[in-house]
Amino acid sequence: MNPVIEQQVKDFRELVQKIKSYEEALGVMYWDLRTGAPKKGMEARSEVIGVLSTEMFKLSTSNEMGEYVAALSEPEAYAQLDEMNQKIVQECKKEYEKSKKIPAKMYQEYVVLTTQAENVWEEAREADDFEMFKPYLEKVVAYNQQFIDLWGAKETRYDTLLDMYEPGLTVAKLDEVFGEVRARTVPLVAAIAASQDKPDMSCLEQKFDIDKQREISLFLLEQMGYDFDAGRLDVSVHPFATGLNPGDVRITTRYDEKDLPNSLFSSLHEGGHALYEQNISKDLIGTPLCTGTSMGIHESQSRFWENMIGRSRLFWNRYYKDVQRIFPGQLDVSADAFYRAMNRSEASFIRTESDELTYNLHIIIRYEIEKMLFNEGLSVADLPAVWNAKYEEYLGITPPSDSLGVLQDVHWGGGGFGYFPSYSLGNMYAAQMMHTMRQEMPELDSYIEQGRLAPIKEWLTDKVYQYGKSQTPGEIIQRITGEELNPTYLIEYLENKFKEVYNLQ
Amino acid sequence: MNPVIEQQVKDFRELVQKIKSYEEALGVMYWDLRTGAPKKGMEARSEVIGVLSTEMFKLSTSNEMGEYVAALSEPEAYAQLDEMNQKIVQECKKEYEKSKKIPAKMYQEYVVLTTQAENVWEEAREADDFEMFKPYLEKVVAYNQQFIDLWGAKETRYDTLLDMYEPGLTVAKLDEVFGEVRARTVPLVAAIAASQDKPDMSCLEQKFDIDKQREISLFLLEQMGYDFDAGRLDVSVHPFATGLNPGDVRITTRYDEKDLPNSLFSSLHEGGHALYEQNISKDLIGTPLCTGTSMGIHESQSRFWENMIGRSRLFWNRYYKDVQRIFPGQLDVSADAFYRAMNRSEASFIRTESDELTYNLHIIIRYEIEKMLFNEGLSVADLPAVWNAKYEEYLGITPPSDSLGVLQDVHWGGGGFGYFPSYSLGNMYAAQMMHTMRQEMPELDSYIEQGRLAPIKEWLTDKVYQYGKSQTPGEIIQRITGEELNPTYLIEYLENKFKEVYNLQ
Repeated sequence: MNPVIEQQVKDFRELVQKIKSYEEALGVMYWDLRTGAPKKGMEARSEVIGVLSTEMFKLSTSNEMGEYVAALSEPEAYAQLDEMNQKIVQECKKEYEKSKKIPAKMYQEYVVLTTQAENVWEEAREADDFEMFKPYLEKVVAYNQQFIDLWGAKETRYDTLLDMYEPGLTVAKLDEVFGEVRARTVPLVAAIAASQDKPDMSCLEQKFDIDKQREISLFLLEQMGYDFDAGRLDVSVHPFATGLNPGDVRITTRYDEKDLPNSLFSSLHEGGHALYEQNISKDLIGTPLCTGTSMGIHESQSRFWENMIGRSRLFWNRYYKDVQRIFPGQLDVSADAFYRAMNRSEASFIRTESDELTYNLHIIIRYEIEKMLFNEGLSVADLPAVWNAKYEEYLGITPPSDSLGVLQDVHWGGGGFGYFPSYSLGNMYAAQMMHTMRQEMPELDSYIEQGRLAPIKEWLTDKVYQYGKSQTPGEIIQRITGEELNPTYLIEYLENKFKEVYNLQ
Repeated sequence: MNPVIEQQVKDFRELVQKIKSYEEALGVMYWDLRTGAPKKGMEARSEVIGVLSTEMFKLSTSNEMGEYVAALSEPEAYAQLDEMNQKIVQECKKEYEKSKKIPAKMYQEYVVLTTQAENVWEEAREADDFEMFKPYLEKVVAYNQQFIDLWGAKETRYDTLLDMYEPGLTVAKLDEVFGEVRARTVPLVAAIAASQDKPDMSCLEQKFDIDKQREISLFLLEQMGYDFDAGRLDVSVHPFATGLNPGDVRITTRYDEKDLPNSLFSSLHEGGHALYEQNISKDLIGTPLCTGTSMGIHESQSRFWENMIGRSRLFWNRYYKDVQRIFPGQLDVSADAFYRAMNRSEASFIRTESDELTYNLHIIIRYEIEKMLFNEGLSVADLPAVWNAKYEEYLGITPPSDSLGVLQDVHWGGGGFGYFPSYSLGNMYAAQMMHTMRQEMPELDSYIEQGRLAPIKEWLTDKVYQYGKSQTPGEIIQRITGEELNPTYLIEYLENKFKEVYNLQ
């Protein structure tokens, strides 16, 4: 390599490493704030986070960064880089250009606005008062419209937002896949509602000791291969996973004495996110590639472990006896009855409390509304009416209040338009991967039933985890399954599963 | 105020706030590393800490900082500053000048060396092999000799090191006060060794459940006024307190089933440090004055709560029944017997396990040796022999191995010469303050005996805590007690206490 370029690469990588250091420090502080930092220190801590975030943003958009990415993107220089450095340059260039298009002052105003909007949202939800939230949400939408103008509209304006969370994803593609999911889910939900053979929920309607809930979480995380020398399990109000580096990927769950499935599936869900981050190749440490490739692929891993594995009949054939062991005398129903109770499906108002099947309809509603906001001129004032109409149409229920409707999620106050589809993308990717896994690993079902989960983790490490962000979501799903995102696998999986659970024909 | 100066002050304070933000972020990461961060993430985390420490050091020694402190120290500008800004300028100037005198390369080499030396020390202590540690320690001493050359020797060369931890403290003063303490402690230790009426230790020689040990720690911390909304209690190998900001002051303790006093007094000790940091005036947040004024004054507060309060007869007259309540059926001896067992004094090899009385002799030995190293040409090779001779002379015991002797402390490997005296200074300051407190608050003893600890915390807040680093140790002790550091109060306190415990004449 040309020694000038060699030096540039070295300096560039040092800057990149520095940015990652700020990111990790901020990650530790966020984790700390959410797992038990004393409340009287919050104000000073916010200041500290503000200072370090600003420094990190300055480094990412510095002239230095601009010069490195410009120089190393020159065809002559670029050709001399190895593949990893090429990808790092690409990634930094993309972020640099995106950030540089937003004036610093505007960005700062937006950060202040979304912080306020999130606070007001919390009060508004509490007070069940959409009018209180409306002016803030209108401003957040207006800023996002301006961002689209600055970044440039892709195929449609909303495509620009989607691309932030799922690079390469388009409205055209989502309309197609969500259309199919919706068309086949809505009648299934209706059939389930009419079913006469519903799971008996009484086995779950009892108190489960919290220390023992923790014990079962720890046991199942260990079974799935979560490495406790590279992580820890804590408690927070909203469960989350945070990958500080592959040797330190922390998860949280929450415990409710009256809700065993809540802690259990939260742990499996966050454990799935964590397996991804723990198994990224060590070569990527200190680079922007050392993270999940997209929100959708990340969610595919949490959903894979939570739903495809953790809510399967095979899994409970193996692990029900451990739940019985940990809660002696509390569970005398059959494994089948326990499995069915764990998979009750019912239309409900709150997304985060919904089941595996109806969940996707909650997401599709949000997607359709966001698309109307950014592509079709829907006004914020009309959100509650549109929201309620769609719930009636797809789920057959009308929210009795905005708290149980349009005000339930924090995402919009924080400006996260384009994020919601990730959740259902995750379900689709997971089912599609599972289909290929079953073909390549004919013993898959017996492995799950025997509790041999290691080969599954290894397969996913080999196919997904190790690459971190060095391949796009599209590249990954194509390479693994030989085709692009295809909703058929999810639809068939859901139909088979829920027809069986509800004895529908 | 002149508008140019006004702007300079504003910019200066912003830089100062930025430096404090790095300090808090680093503080959170150190706390995290010591309370349960997963071990596989340590390597990447060290990198992150390295990057942020370097940035912080660069800011403290930046040209920008140099220009601000120069400009604001100009008599005309300085006179226009309020008292707090004057003190902030002084403090930053002192740090700036000290840091600027060390070439950056030398400082980096020193950081690498001390990290290595600490690691080698750990192995050497394990292997009981001073020769292994010697070459590293020689280099660490040599670097400190160079630092003294660069900073300039004060009255003596060792004075320069002392001043780092206890501004204004000198060898002349320490020789005097330590001389008195030594002269009166050595015969008392000998008399205790010869005593026929020793405390019966059997009440402590049993297993104490760890959850209950935690319960008593939490209870006593609450009693002393530690604010759990501005802190938390965790576990670490070596207990510590860390003040991130006055709203977030965390402490740790350690639990050993067979050693109740260990967790109990560690909690009171760290709780004392924490009361100091929690009660610094909020006006000082974001400035270098928002911390304890010196190691010695800090230690006076941990020792005050651990020893003067926590090991007193009055305290156990009140709180023994709570220990009995928390450990039902385990403690049937009298409060007096429990108090005496808690105050057993015996010459021993390890400083950190020694009692309130012999502790000061451990410190005086280290002080005398450090002084010999820096002022009298003692060579590192001769340390073990000098160490053992002093233990024999002052404590009447000769360490059977270097692991139980000169290799026991981490401080020297880390370059902390001049630090050890702080521990005994703390004891002296604490006794001196207690003497004044008793005069000003005649109800003091009955307050302790009734468990009314709030007035004590308020007195200390009023006299010490609120000021943070805005007054020097000398100013504080003079203002409170009307005289400079005087060892008589400690000596008399120890003589009265231990003669009574051991029924000596």
